[in-house]
Amino acid sequence: MIKTNFSNSKLIINKHEFNECYQRIKDELKHNYMFGWHQYLLANHDDLISEINQINTELQGYAKNMVVIGIGGSYLGSYAINEALNNGYHQEYQLIFLGQNLDSDYFNNVLAFCEENDFVLNVISKSGNTLEPSLAYELIKELMIKKYTYEGFKKRIIITTDAQEGCLRDECLKHDLKSLIINNDIGGRYSVFTSVGLLPLAFVNINIKELLLGAQAASKCYYTKDVNDAFYYALIRNNEYLNDKKVEALIVYNPYLRGLIEWYKQLFAESEGKNKKGLLPIGMVYSTDLHSLGQFVQEGTPMLFETNITFKSNNDISLKNFINNDALAYLSKYDLEDVNKIVNSSVIKAHYEIGNINNYVLALNELNEYNLAYLMTFMMYSCAYSASLLAVDPFNQPGVEVYKKEIKELL
Amino acid sequence: MIKTNFSNSKLIINKHEFNECYQRIKDELKHNYMFGWHQYLLANHDDLISEINQINTELQGYAKNMVVIGIGGSYLGSYAINEALNNGYHQEYQLIFLGQNLDSDYFNNVLAFCEENDFVLNVISKSGNTLEPSLAYELIKELMIKKYTYEGFKKRIIITTDAQEGCLRDECLKHDLKSLIINNDIGGRYSVFTSVGLLPLAFVNINIKELLLGAQAASKCYYTKDVNDAFYYALIRNNEYLNDKKVEALIVYNPYLRGLIEWYKQLFAESEGKNKKGLLPIGMVYSTDLHSLGQFVQEGTPMLFETNITFKSNNDISLKNFINNDALAYLSKYDLEDVNKIVNSSVIKAHYEIGNINNYVLALNELNEYNLAYLMTFMMYSCAYSASLLAVDPFNQPGVEVYKKEIKELL
Repeated sequence: MIKTNFSNSKLIINKHEFNECYQRIKDELKHNYMFGWHQYLLANHDDLISEINQINTELQGYAKNMVVIGIGGSYLGSYAINEALNNGYHQEYQLIFLGQNLDSDYFNNVLAFCEENDFVLNVISKSGNTLEPSLAYELIKELMIKKYTYEGFKKRIIITTDAQEGCLRDECLKHDLKSLIINNDIGGRYSVFTSVGLLPLAFVNINIKELLLGAQAASKCYYTKDVNDAFYYALIRNNEYLNDKKVEALIVYNPYLRGLIEWYKQLFAESEGKNKKGLLPIGMVYSTDLHSLGQFVQEGTPMLFETNITFKSNNDISLKNFINNDALAYLSKYDLEDVNKIVNSSVIKAHYEIGNINNYVLALNELNEYNLAYLMTFMMYSCAYSASLLAVDPFNQPGVEVYKKEIKELL
Repeated sequence: MIKTNFSNSKLIINKHEFNECYQRIKDELKHNYMFGWHQYLLANHDDLISEINQINTELQGYAKNMVVIGIGGSYLGSYAINEALNNGYHQEYQLIFLGQNLDSDYFNNVLAFCEENDFVLNVISKSGNTLEPSLAYELIKELMIKKYTYEGFKKRIIITTDAQEGCLRDECLKHDLKSLIINNDIGGRYSVFTSVGLLPLAFVNINIKELLLGAQAASKCYYTKDVNDAFYYALIRNNEYLNDKKVEALIVYNPYLRGLIEWYKQLFAESEGKNKKGLLPIGMVYSTDLHSLGQFVQEGTPMLFETNITFKSNNDISLKNFINNDALAYLSKYDLEDVNKIVNSSVIKAHYEIGNINNYVLALNELNEYNLAYLMTFMMYSCAYSASLLAVDPFNQPGVEVYKKEIKELL
């Protein structure tokens, strides 16, 4: 499902070493409680799908807009998938994200939108006490009760939180609100295929069954099989890191994958970035950023390698009838996608052969629910392996607590 | 106009060394032909403002949407300023950018929008032969002639290009099109305050006179004055670079400054990233990205320092009447902006005192045309100084040509 090209790698490892290392790390992960997403992805979730579809039928009856309150892993997955697959100018159902920042201009815009348009609300937070989403919920709740009455508010909200504990669970009990459960053994950045991501994605008509099938197929491949690309990719990343290439740039050729870049950045940065270790994950959208960071990549401080995500778009544009300009006549034999692909090949060649920048490729044949979920699951396994190779826990984030403590003191 | 805080720096330099270095580098720049933007920013541009206002009055009569075709320096400046200052949900006039990528989904969406809505067109390219904007122009031109007739097309387009040479100048002559001139001695990434940026910004009702006044005031300060923060900031960046902090993260607390981050990345990456040198510029929007890259910044590979852009928003939200939740009662004495500022201070403290990450601050009192232009001009001077300290030419981009050559061969 993913065609990889790792030929730029200088990693040397024999089959025996590979297997030994792979088994050791799989074993470590198996004993980590927060590796629960692995079992989750392998399991059948028809009941959850039914439950979500039922909730959505009701919610879609109220509005075409869903405000999603969440930060970090509570929104980045659904944000990424919605943007990648619903990139259309004519999108019927929309997600509006809130509680992922504290900016008053942004809050004012969303609140104004909510005054003027019908909407439903999904609040997503495990603990229920993270500052940004808590504040957002207070502001939106007040507006909803004013706009829809207390009974109307109760119909239009669903809360996704811990099964037993926390402010949001209390809120569900107090007001008798609909809720979904966040699994205890799955961390935020690995939660996109749980209720956290599935409910908002179902609202915007993403086929969540296909998502789960893609994630399940990848899950079967990237942990259970003896030889697998996800572990090999982790080894390659680790080799780059040991060779002082401390930055990985995820390269996409489609601007609607900016959300995927943001999801990828959280996944790897939070999983690897501890004990003074880890690759810094950045992202670029080419060809746009060739006219920005491109100069630095080609000739600047040699500190990075590139991983390219490629696929063939379904909505191509033939250039045959468009080009009336002699200077561009040489393009008229192509479709636009061909040109984009040729730029991709040219850039890899220029960066590798002339710039000495290693380039890896993760190619999908097309972008759809199944393949995108497959790719994201590939990344989740790779990330868990990669962090384990650095001897850090892929599933905790002690550094995030440091500034939260400072905030509490200052407030 | 910019209140700086560089107290985290360990740079030691005496007045004499500072002056000697500053004079040497100013002298080098003075002899660089492409430093033309310095003289440009000091000059009076009332005639250009009148010309642009006149053109705009006509264009605004035709449509509320302007398609802007351009890539790199031809669009990033206007994109950044429009997003920062017109961040409203109720924006009357809009810019739609095209020709900054080759993605067929993106093209299809813009073309569909153009079929269904009235628009005018500004094509911006010095040479007129860059692949992406050339292709975009061909596709939009065909659509415009079909939609508006040939005469209607001619009324709705303005071309910004070289005074004498190139395909677009030929196009102006052939069809007798309105045009603005791109100065020969100003490179794309330093061109935001020329006709390149001013025309689209005037279309969306940005006060371009105030922009030029802010840029002029900064220009008077950051080159002519004996002691100035722009040069000091360049020295500090250089000191970080020499101490193996090879990544600068520009930190903003307002999501509408993402465009400014993109503009900053091009400015510094293309100016510094050559001869295997330069700081890698990245950007983060806090508090959003504290739940993403934050873990890496706090505890990951120690390779970066942070530069914070702060200002006070005009559209604050009082939390006094909103907080009905006991767990959040401690917030009710604040406005939302206070909370955002407290997070800013907490993060700087956590990153510096615990994470050992140097933090610098560039503070504006509020965000408006004058101050934003002042800040961007500060960055342009700092960038020219900083590249000069690395002994590279701040105004060329040889690496961008490398992949263009590969593309030509493959096409």
